[in-house]
Amino acid sequence: MPCTSSWMILVTLINVFTVDPTNEQQIFELLTRPTKVSVRHAPGFVSASFHRSIDGTKVTMYAQWRSVEDYQAMRQDPAPLPFFQETLAIATFEPGMYEVVQTFTPLGEDA
Amino acid sequence: MPCTSSWMILVTLINVFTVDPTNEQQIFELLTRPTKVSVRHAPGFVSASFHRSIDGTKVTMYAQWRSVEDYQAMRQDPAPLPFFQETLAIATFEPGMYEVVQTFTPLGEDA
Repeated sequence: MPCTSSWMILVTLINVFTVDPTNEQQIFELLTRPTKVSVRHAPGFVSASFHRSIDGTKVTMYAQWRSVEDYQAMRQDPAPLPFFQETLAIATFEPGMYEVVQTFTPLGEDA
Repeated sequence: MPCTSSWMILVTLINVFTVDPTNEQQIFELLTRPTKVSVRHAPGFVSASFHRSIDGTKVTMYAQWRSVEDYQAMRQDPAPLPFFQETLAIATFEPGMYEVVQTFTPLGEDA
């Protein structure tokens, strides 16, 4: 479940990359490499999980940051840009910036 | 961060609903009500989090289940269907069924 608590409102990025299944592994590597090398060391980074769709057509990143400002500051770093440009050459990209509003578990709900 | 562990591979649903901002609150209620009343009691349900995009145009569900079979069994329940049909009348819907492949934190990574 997303990592949230009542005392800290995180910003959540959910970015869906749609690909030809033959490119899925390449997209996965283009997205995870800069996360491993630079993004995860940026101030305010909380977590990033990478998901592969069972039908092979999507790679989706679910990431959380302490604040929008921390995320925007990371985007000024030129290191991940070549990976991102290579990704966009072979995938379509639907970005989303969110707040978690409600989480349910089998036992109940958190606002 | 997504709730995973090395001893259990969960199935993850990431469903993006795109809406006119004037309908965002209604979509949010149409999605959370059946989760609260019935879906979270289904066998194999692990968690569901609902996200509102900062620009007001998307509501995204991030849910995890013990298995695809548990999720498919829940879909046979007719109780949530009217809510879902009402949702689709005012939102476009991009579903995705995934496995989590890799998670990064500031301290490192989990495969």
